Amino acid sequence: MVVNAFFATFAAKKTKTTMAPRKPSIPKGTRDFSTAEMARRNYIFDTIREVFGLYGYRQIETPAMENLSTLMGKYGDEGDKLLFKILNSGDYLRGTDRELIDAGDYVHLTPQISDKGLRYDLTVPFARFVVQHREELQLPFKRFQIQPVWRADRPQKGRYREFYQCDADVVGSDSLLNEVELLQIIDQVFRRLRIRVAIKLNNRKVLAGIAELIGAPDKLIDITVAIDKIDKIGIDKVNEELSERGLGDEAIAALRPILEISGSLTERIARLETLLADIEIGRRGVEELREVTEATRALGLEAELDLDVSLARGLNYYTGTIIEVKALDVEIGSITGGGRYDNLTGVFGLDGISGVGISFGADRIYDVLNALDLYPEATRVATEVMFVNFGTAEASAALAAAKRMRAAGISVEVYPDSAKMKKQMAYANASSIPYVAIIGESELAEEKITLKEMATGSQDLLGVDEIIARLRP
Amino acid sequence: MVVNAFFATFAAKKTKTTMAPRKPSIPKGTRDFSTAEMARRNYIFDTIREVFGLYGYRQIETPAMENLSTLMGKYGDEGDKLLFKILNSGDYLRGTDRELIDAGDYVHLTPQISDKGLRYDLTVPFARFVVQHREELQLPFKRFQIQPVWRADRPQKGRYREFYQCDADVVGSDSLLNEVELLQIIDQVFRRLRIRVAIKLNNRKVLAGIAELIGAPDKLIDITVAIDKIDKIGIDKVNEELSERGLGDEAIAALRPILEISGSLTERIARLETLLADIEIGRRGVEELREVTEATRALGLEAELDLDVSLARGLNYYTGTIIEVKALDVEIGSITGGGRYDNLTGVFGLDGISGVGISFGADRIYDVLNALDLYPEATRVATEVMFVNFGTAEASAALAAAKRMRAAGISVEVYPDSAKMKKQMAYANASSIPYVAIIGESELAEEKITLKEMATGSQDLLGVDEIIARLRP
Repeated sequence: MVVNAFFATFAAKKTKTTMAPRKPSIPKGTRDFSTAEMARRNYIFDTIREVFGLYGYRQIETPAMENLSTLMGKYGDEGDKLLFKILNSGDYLRGTDRELIDAGDYVHLTPQISDKGLRYDLTVPFARFVVQHREELQLPFKRFQIQPVWRADRPQKGRYREFYQCDADVVGSDSLLNEVELLQIIDQVFRRLRIRVAIKLNNRKVLAGIAELIGAPDKLIDITVAIDKIDKIGIDKVNEELSERGLGDEAIAALRPILEISGSLTERIARLETLLADIEIGRRGVEELREVTEATRALGLEAELDLDVSLARGLNYYTGTIIEVKALDVEIGSITGGGRYDNLTGVFGLDGISGVGISFGADRIYDVLNALDLYPEATRVATEVMFVNFGTAEASAALAAAKRMRAAGISVEVYPDSAKMKKQMAYANASSIPYVAIIGESELAEEKITLKEMATGSQDLLGVDEIIARLRP
Repeated sequence: MVVNAFFATFAAKKTKTTMAPRKPSIPKGTRDFSTAEMARRNYIFDTIREVFGLYGYRQIETPAMENLSTLMGKYGDEGDKLLFKILNSGDYLRGTDRELIDAGDYVHLTPQISDKGLRYDLTVPFARFVVQHREELQLPFKRFQIQPVWRADRPQKGRYREFYQCDADVVGSDSLLNEVELLQIIDQVFRRLRIRVAIKLNNRKVLAGIAELIGAPDKLIDITVAIDKIDKIGIDKVNEELSERGLGDEAIAALRPILEISGSLTERIARLETLLADIEIGRRGVEELREVTEATRALGLEAELDLDVSLARGLNYYTGTIIEVKALDVEIGSITGGGRYDNLTGVFGLDGISGVGISFGADRIYDVLNALDLYPEATRVATEVMFVNFGTAEASAALAAAKRMRAAGISVEVYPDSAKMKKQMAYANASSIPYVAIIGESELAEEKITLKEMATGSQDLLGVDEIIARLRP
């Protein structure tokens, strides 16, 4: 396949029928990642990956393209529109319904000319994966997945058409230990990244209990949609919205003390328990909250753990625990979220698979790390040592020395051309290479290397082994 | 964005307008990668990535989608057909030319309803990247890139519509030291993967010299296309093809001694030098070959280094060194290839950027490793220790112990449910977890853990620190 590509590239060059604009660009909402950006992004991904691994979550990958039948109808009408659809190969016009075309009915034409789309998130492909490979999977199945997703959203600051999601889910277990473990994972990841966070918890059963308590069990969704905004618009506006959504004054009044619960986490859970004492589902929700928070706190947590009865995150999607993480030192939306769901795979015909999962928002975490400049030194340095090139004989000696240093795990470049010293040093500087190694005429005779530390300018005449010992003490 | 996705998922569930089939599947030519497959693939990618890094190559990433104007015309007519094109969002029918539709002219309709495509290789996006970010790049620019590419090829064994490429290129330097370094990288990667390989070298200037020597300089492409097949079809068939391509008997006869050069690498280069002594371009090619092979061999190489004058790989694409790697112990096509090109970015309006690069074929390397079963033990094991769950109090102790073990870098699971012992052990077995840790009533009282080694069945009663000391000696 590599041959084909190069061959084809040649063919294109020969025929010279290029349509390329003078200054090429990329589709709006997409990004190139430079070497410096990739170093920082890999630091985030590697941290998340390592923590997932310590908890026994194992990686899977799914194709970028899914059948449209897998994707359509899973994200609502708006989501269907935001799916990137792939034009069928070959003569896609053949067999299409010309009446649809004449009527300009592109919505109904689409399934006739496209049967694949780019994945929109990692949740639906995971559900599809679990059902498709059900026979091979050992339950409980703990998987993580770090891959890009694509959405035809209007691009805006911090919102991209291609972005990465980092999901960990366990399916096939009802145990709250899974929640405890996911909270530990969240805590570990942000501790390692040195981002101070608050983890907010809620439980869908508590929300259901509240709706029942205030006499509006059928208004659960209206209530949660409205109170989810309390941080943004305040309680008065929330009450207005609840009223618009058909909630009576009595219900709104009954809701108020719940939204105003205060005190320590333990106190608030106790207060909630009292308020929901007579509501079976609410009591169960409080019990789950207590169990999860107590077990997590017993293990010791760096993050703040918080109860937030206004937290809804996707409403009916979740059936138990709901989790959301906020950075404490940067104003930004939620940087991680998740929760328990009962029927992830039902839409693909497999019922009864319960699960719980979290999703790290890599792009927002990247923004937080940038804002706080929390990257460790290692992400700034790629090559540790650059050999200056003074010509054939010197470069040969440099290559041999470089080989030994690489065997010791040191990243080394030999400047490829015997260019002017000034140019070579400028390259080292611009590439943030911390050490420059020099083998000139005298070093060649002495079989030594002058090692220059760029930050201080200090120089030493050393053997290869001495350099290795200094850089890898 | 996470909120939106979950919200939308909920909305979809509510409306229940699912189109999903009972048994979901993925598009043909694409693959899911299971946890075991990912462990093996990551072993390959990590090895390649680490070696790239030791030589100062730094990672970039480009978007999955490129503008069609960037992609079209770069891979020949066949390549244009094999591009996956993305349907424009919204009312893509508006403004289309109905005459094209009525005529069924989908080829000319496509640019009206699609302006983006999925990347077909990493070379064209890299060229686009270099031109687009020219101002920010420090030359020589050494980048590597490991990302999937997509081609609407007819799927067949070993050929996929989504597969990974692993490319390293350096642009902005003519020095042959780059070739030497890339050969060292190839050698290192396959040494680490324990795959025995032969690296075949050729040089485009040698091919040009040969064409000139036999009096057919205008037939360079015909000659290289034909002799590239010599391994597959033999010299007689090659000669037949050369004849069909218009080469005279004299030229064919003159070519024969070149194709039959034998002896050691040094002898063959010497012989080639003699044959091409009067051809300026050929002499330069031989000189380059000699310089690259001598410098590489002086550094010590595990791989066989070989001259192959029939090696063409993409013809005019390359302008100097041509590289191809074959596995010695498995019958499979080339597993890595590359070479020097002089005008990668010319098609995007930036001339004079010379470069040299290699591309590891991750999927074929994966096949070779599978065939030879060369994976290290670590790729078979994910979780090292699983705690059996005997109920609330025991599980709490297990969670606390697990936390300490994870802090020591050990991957630990606590079985989430207090299921039957048999079921838990079956899970550990099926997941290839090498150690099971047991905290039952007596261990709880003693504050100890029974550590069972699954392979031998041997058990020891140990403290957490003792377990850590045993697993991380």
